[in-house]
Amino acid sequence: MFYYDGKLQYPVRVETPDPRFARALQQAIGGVEGEMRVCLQYLFQAFGARGPKKYRDMLLATGTEEIAHIEMLATAVAMNLEGASSTMQEAAAKANPLVEAVMGGGDPRQYLSAGMAALASDANGVPFDGSHVYASGNLAADMYSNVTAEATGRALACRLFELTDDPGMKDMLRFLIARDTMHQQQWLAVIEELGGHQGTLPIPNSFPVKEELRDVSYDYVFTGIEGVQPPQGRWTQGPSLDGMGEFRLVAAQPMGQEPMLAPPMPQAYAETQQMTGAGMSGTKDESLS
Amino acid sequence: MFYYDGKLQYPVRVETPDPRFARALQQAIGGVEGEMRVCLQYLFQAFGARGPKKYRDMLLATGTEEIAHIEMLATAVAMNLEGASSTMQEAAAKANPLVEAVMGGGDPRQYLSAGMAALASDANGVPFDGSHVYASGNLAADMYSNVTAEATGRALACRLFELTDDPGMKDMLRFLIARDTMHQQQWLAVIEELGGHQGTLPIPNSFPVKEELRDVSYDYVFTGIEGVQPPQGRWTQGPSLDGMGEFRLVAAQPMGQEPMLAPPMPQAYAETQQMTGAGMSGTKDESLS
Amino acid sequence: MFYYDGKLQYPVRVETPDPRFARALQQAIGGVEGEMRVCLQYLFQAFGARGPKKYRDMLLATGTEEIAHIEMLATAVAMNLEGASSTMQEAAAKANPLVEAVMGGGDPRQYLSAGMAALASDANGVPFDGSHVYASGNLAADMYSNVTAEATGRALACRLFELTDDPGMKDMLRFLIARDTMHQQQWLAVIEELGGHQGTLPIPNSFPVKEELRDVSYDYVFTGIEGVQPPQGRWTQGPSLDGMGEFRLVAAQPMGQEPMLAPPMPQAYAETQQMTGAGMSGTKDESLS
Amino acid sequence: MFYYDGKLQYPVRVETPDPRFARALQQAIGGVEGEMRVCLQYLFQAFGARGPKKYRDMLLATGTEEIAHIEMLATAVAMNLEGASSTMQEAAAKANPLVEAVMGGGDPRQYLSAGMAALASDANGVPFDGSHVYASGNLAADMYSNVTAEATGRALACRLFELTDDPGMKDMLRFLIARDTMHQQQWLAVIEELGGHQGTLPIPNSFPVKEELRDVSYDYVFTGIEGVQPPQGRWTQGPSLDGMGEFRLVAAQPMGQEPMLAPPMPQAYAETQQMTGAGMSGTKDESLS
Amino acid sequence: MFYYDGKLQYPVRVETPDPRFARALQQAIGGVEGEMRVCLQYLFQAFGARGPKKYRDMLLATGTEEIAHIEMLATAVAMNLEGASSTMQEAAAKANPLVEAVMGGGDPRQYLSAGMAALASDANGVPFDGSHVYASGNLAADMYSNVTAEATGRALACRLFELTDDPGMKDMLRFLIARDTMHQQQWLAVIEELGGHQGTLPIPNSFPVKEELRDVSYDYVFTGIEGVQPPQGRWTQGPSLDGMGEFRLVAAQPMGQEPMLAPPMPQAYAETQQMTGAGMSGTKDESLS
Amino acid sequence: MFYYDGKLQYPVRVETPDPRFARALQQAIGGVEGEMRVCLQYLFQAFGARGPKKYRDMLLATGTEEIAHIEMLATAVAMNLEGASSTMQEAAAKANPLVEAVMGGGDPRQYLSAGMAALASDANGVPFDGSHVYASGNLAADMYSNVTAEATGRALACRLFELTDDPGMKDMLRFLIARDTMHQQQWLAVIEELGGHQGTLPIPNSFPVKEELRDVSYDYVFTGIEGVQPPQGRWTQGPSLDGMGEFRLVAAQPMGQEPMLAPPMPQAYAETQQMTGAGMSGTKDESLS
Repeated sequence: MFYYDGKLQYPVRVETPDPRFARALQQAIGGVEGEMRVCLQYLFQAFGARGPKKYRDMLLATGTEEIAHIEMLATAVAMNLEGASSTMQEAAAKANPLVEAVMGGGDPRQYLSAGMAALASDANGVPFDGSHVYASGNLAADMYSNVTAEATGRALACRLFELTDDPGMKDMLRFLIARDTMHQQQWLAVIEELGGHQGTLPIPNSFPVKEELRDVSYDYVFTGIEGVQPPQGRWTQGPSLDGMGEFRLVAAQPMGQEPMLAPPMPQAYAETQQMTGAGMSGTKDESLS
Repeated sequence: MFYYDGKLQYPVRVETPDPRFARALQQAIGGVEGEMRVCLQYLFQAFGARGPKKYRDMLLATGTEEIAHIEMLATAVAMNLEGASSTMQEAAAKANPLVEAVMGGGDPRQYLSAGMAALASDANGVPFDGSHVYASGNLAADMYSNVTAEATGRALACRLFELTDDPGMKDMLRFLIARDTMHQQQWLAVIEELGGHQGTLPIPNSFPVKEELRDVSYDYVFTGIEGVQPPQGRWTQGPSLDGMGEFRLVAAQPMGQEPMLAPPMPQAYAETQQMTGAGMSGTKDESLS
Repeated sequence: MFYYDGKLQYPVRVETPDPRFARALQQAIGGVEGEMRVCLQYLFQAFGARGPKKYRDMLLATGTEEIAHIEMLATAVAMNLEGASSTMQEAAAKANPLVEAVMGGGDPRQYLSAGMAALASDANGVPFDGSHVYASGNLAADMYSNVTAEATGRALACRLFELTDDPGMKDMLRFLIARDTMHQQQWLAVIEELGGHQGTLPIPNSFPVKEELRDVSYDYVFTGIEGVQPPQGRWTQGPSLDGMGEFRLVAAQPMGQEPMLAPPMPQAYAETQQMTGAGMSGTKDESLS
Repeated sequence: MFYYDGKLQYPVRVETPDPRFARALQQAIGGVEGEMRVCLQYLFQAFGARGPKKYRDMLLATGTEEIAHIEMLATAVAMNLEGASSTMQEAAAKANPLVEAVMGGGDPRQYLSAGMAALASDANGVPFDGSHVYASGNLAADMYSNVTAEATGRALACRLFELTDDPGMKDMLRFLIARDTMHQQQWLAVIEELGGHQGTLPIPNSFPVKEELRDVSYDYVFTGIEGVQPPQGRWTQGPSLDGMGEFRLVAAQPMGQEPMLAPPMPQAYAETQQMTGAGMSGTKDESLS
Repeated sequence: MFYYDGKLQYPVRVETPDPRFARALQQAIGGVEGEMRVCLQYLFQAFGARGPKKYRDMLLATGTEEIAHIEMLATAVAMNLEGASSTMQEAAAKANPLVEAVMGGGDPRQYLSAGMAALASDANGVPFDGSHVYASGNLAADMYSNVTAEATGRALACRLFELTDDPGMKDMLRFLIARDTMHQQQWLAVIEELGGHQGTLPIPNSFPVKEELRDVSYDYVFTGIEGVQPPQGRWTQGPSLDGMGEFRLVAAQPMGQEPMLAPPMPQAYAETQQMTGAGMSGTKDESLS
Repeated sequence: MFYYDGKLQYPVRVETPDPRFARALQQAIGGVEGEMRVCLQYLFQAFGARGPKKYRDMLLATGTEEIAHIEMLATAVAMNLEGASSTMQEAAAKANPLVEAVMGGGDPRQYLSAGMAALASDANGVPFDGSHVYASGNLAADMYSNVTAEATGRALACRLFELTDDPGMKDMLRFLIARDTMHQQQWLAVIEELGGHQGTLPIPNSFPVKEELRDVSYDYVFTGIEGVQPPQGRWTQGPSLDGMGEFRLVAAQPMGQEPMLAPPMPQAYAETQQMTGAGMSGTKDESLS
């Protein structure tokens, strides 16, 4: 169960409202790298957690923190859309300052649909999409998913930092960037607890290794045509990270057949010619014979 | 530029076609853990790669391999929808075996929209969605994103392995599972090349650390209310993984204000009462009595 | 800022796990009538609230309650996917009980993508979609949107009630149905506070009424062709609910012109014939004969 | 069955074509508050209507009217993208006036995909999404859904009114705003016919009230932590609107257990450590014992 | 402007309601091959039509007919979900016939969200998506798009015909199949009016041919690697269909460079190593050993 | 199986990077008319091809070519986002040139999410959507779908040609436009091989014509109300294109009944009034009697 106190986790101040920045901030709310995604991802991972209870609790605590980040960012959007600012005054030189504010690089739906507030969408107005809520039931897979979310999330926050000169906004981002620093490492700390690469790889580590086709488990398959140089690196030599094999470089080569599907069944209503091969105007199709 | 040879990377055989399994396989084609996603993700990361050329090449090679995986799986779907099989014969006991095959746990669109072939969708018929093609421009973030994709992808393949008894299908999955084993470690090998945790964290490592609010960079913020036990682990103590701090446990506490937005501007067309605050409390509604 | 205690708002018990019901429950999590939607809708309305503070607080409190409803339902899904139940035993009579459980009317992704847990999707596996998070900035519009959400939400919960015989699940739904009873009336109570129909209509009531084309503000426009009987009711006669007019029945009739757009501009690359109008009629097509 | 006459319901005139306004108008076509949604919503409610025939007819008539609104708005978009206007001339000062018109705040797809015409999308180019077509089968729920659509729709139209100075566009919007005034009240008139709050609440009113957990049916559950003031209002006191209870204020408190899911089943392929709790490097997990 | 008469274009009868068929029918309503798509596609093409008026009128008339097809199919869905049928009686042998009807191959949302009626979705419950409403502003492109829609639409209707034994449903489909026969040819008749292949190709025919790179305008580029046989046919020899060239077979060969993007700019926050290239190879990762 | 050589099919040069054009180019990558769509469409048609092998091969070869087009366009996007250009210098006059570049008509996610590279999205940032991958299993339907894709694709490329003055970009588009010229005709050549209109129509031609309702197979149904002139053309007279009938003009007229659905079943939880018709406040509903 959940509770609130109505205060922001960290102060949100905007000295110079900027509708363009309000649009950019949407990416950190409803974008694939945004806070709605991490919030829901950690909560769903917690709600479905099986196994040691402490991971459920850890996820619940951080998922709950992330709601507060959505709150901060939504507040920041609303404040960037407000009132008589230097940005707006500059725009006011134009015929219709509202048009300039809303249609001149801002998100028109922040005005049209929300009356100057945040949306559950990204910086292009694409609605938040629940398919980005990864909760696989495998703890290691989920931890890497969380690291990804925090790594792209921190990159996003750093890029937003470059798009604003507002001291309040920069201050808020400094806080969020620091939280992402922690969260990246928090999930990697779980991987460490699980034994690092050797303790977790290959993910899932509960699938019997003998069931996989071990012949190709450590091959870097190079698909370049003749004459192209294969890219070499740690992945083409040395022991595999799971400690169970040796990386090697292998040129791609088909092991399988040329696929030949059955002809269309009558109820699939292909064209007659697909079924008979006959009657193709002036064309003798020898591939069917 | 790209080329093909028309052969499968690994043999695809189906002894007993099974429309239900054909539906489940869709997840490995168009699902968020599927091959369309990894294929396009690696290709887009390659197309946008900046920096050392070898990573671009490595991504290109593996992205190209993944097209062959889509090909294998799409072939497997089509073959599972074919002809006179024991499954179909069993279904034939019913009034209309086609109905049973298509509507009895299968994906109706494999018949209705594709005439018994694969779709660019997941196991619930949700179309493939390009927002899952992560290519952040940050190599470390992308590598973790790729590990995630291969970890959830291998979990998916293992689960599919449990849903079929067909020797041909199990054989194909053994191959795909092994390839995922390699690909997980391939991307982690890049992290190793980049210097591991200390070389890459916090991601992006090019943002000046002094700009972030270091006070909270290693705090595990515990949002449980009073009386709830905080989950302890590697993330609440010991040196941070980037080697620059010390983890600690901190109880959540608001540092920010209670947000107070400006009143609605007239052009936002809120209700009058929101703007005036008048006449709102103790109002007797007579219109509905 | 937000907090958690790790306990469920109301007990969730499942006596007979039922994967089909686990699929149906998804609608109450990620469906358009579901808890993710109301939760986020109330929170975003709160985060963007302008005007009297008490509405922001009220929204925040109830939005926070709804997180707990997601938690209950996600727990219920996970429990319905568990272990050795009579349903599973019945299924076990089949060749592969896992196949039967997952593909026989269940959501395959609860297994394939989540390892037997809830998804952020609806009962057809369609991901939660943030465009359903309505927060218009107009308090009356938002209240009606919330009533709608709780009315369709309660209908959904009642229908789910019919799909299960499990006493634990029925008990949980009794609780959720009762909460929806409250929430419907909570938002209508705000309308009452705002002065009911006369105090709020037409929404937004801040737009100067004289600016609208009053001639048609209370006309029920009947678009039936000649000979069709117009449906009569409260909407065709009597005073309008806003107290400013009189309803009447009016037959549809065009007041406007037949639209005639300008010809295509050259850079739009229409077909030449669209631009010249030449050679279009009576043309004999010899290319295909 | 349906018919057309090729004329507009109300005149659409554009004196000064404005590509930015053409983009904003898209929200009223394909946005969640737009005409495609209400049109299809009323038609689907009619097509699925069960019970008194007059409601089906009423919905059919108004759904049919809304097609004409799409026609008007699509025409308005096309006209705003046309020819030699003062806006375009102003833009013509730039190097490439087409670039300025299309990429300077307009919707590039109106040119790129439609050759200067309307799309079935919103103001951010997000395609119309059929999940917003609410038709619940419950008349009262549907009426509130329709009120919501017309309330947000009228707010949208009023906001669009502020974004244009074109007399033709303002005139068209005056008409559409007036129609929304009517349509809001038309659906509320049905609620009145059904007996108002007491006749319809709780929705659905056909669910046996005794089956719900009446103890919590009129509780305003306050989730603020200690020290936060609960928001009071009509919803915390007085008789409930359905006339069957009394509102009261109740502090949130968990009635349920701490959820404890079963361990992962082997076929779900969690990490081994999730199943055994053992072998976590250097970590003694006591929560499992 | 539009009108209705409340009658169906063709009788809809259902002798034996079948919830599975009700699900399959959804594809013909909200699927990519369905009636919502053609209806809106023809209407949007009409609304944006530029050039000879008769094409606008033709599109308007047929777009209006298609609304009646949605009406028929939505009615058919609702009737297939009804009452005491042999199918339902058969299901009634099960513990809970409603569960069997709704979850046993049907669309659960037809019950859960619509109370036994049609949705604006496809056979997998994926909502109708406005991006399939093609209206390019180029008449020939649009006509081919319409042919595609009617060709896949007729294939769909034929396949639905195989999924039902109900005489009423078969009769309705016979009508819809016949209408698709007409509509396919109606759009092709426009191509004939425009002068057939030579009159319309290449589409758009208004782009100055000399501006395109004529060297490759009639080459069938064969991307098979060495040893693979090129597929020969009408497309590898003979005059091009536009009458302006000669088809030929050409082996794929890169004409372009190996792309080399600029290094990441600092504000893009790549990893430092991407910018410096330093310390990347032969690095020993000690953090994970 | 697939291979690459790392070189571009045709040179991609950008003299003057232009972030606005980088946004417009996205439509040709991830838009409905774009290269991801044709690439995947041809590959999926190949993977599911049944019948004469040569069509599978032809599709495979061209699908593989299209991957190279995505590569070219993604490279073009990345190069348009680069460095010190005259466009950027002009922007540099502004306070923050990065803001101007990213938010002034560009796609903010190319910076925020991709660090200055291409996305798998369209020009409005809407992610690529797999439902546009048409592969119907009917060869003729698929060929028309491919013609449509190449016709709208070529129109798009022509329009992009107008949005740039960069010689390198114009050169690249000249190449792509020429390839679309070929591809349009390649698919029409298959139709010719299949016997043209008479050999393929009605699609699918394998459905027994006698099963369709031949009475309406060649009727142009005119839905205009009395007084509106029917649009006449090749579609209202002359032999049908399939050679089996005669077109004619017919006024729309309902052949079907007024639909009357059964009352709501109790478990659907309509409002009580819908089931009884009674108790509607003050309203005597005669339509139910």
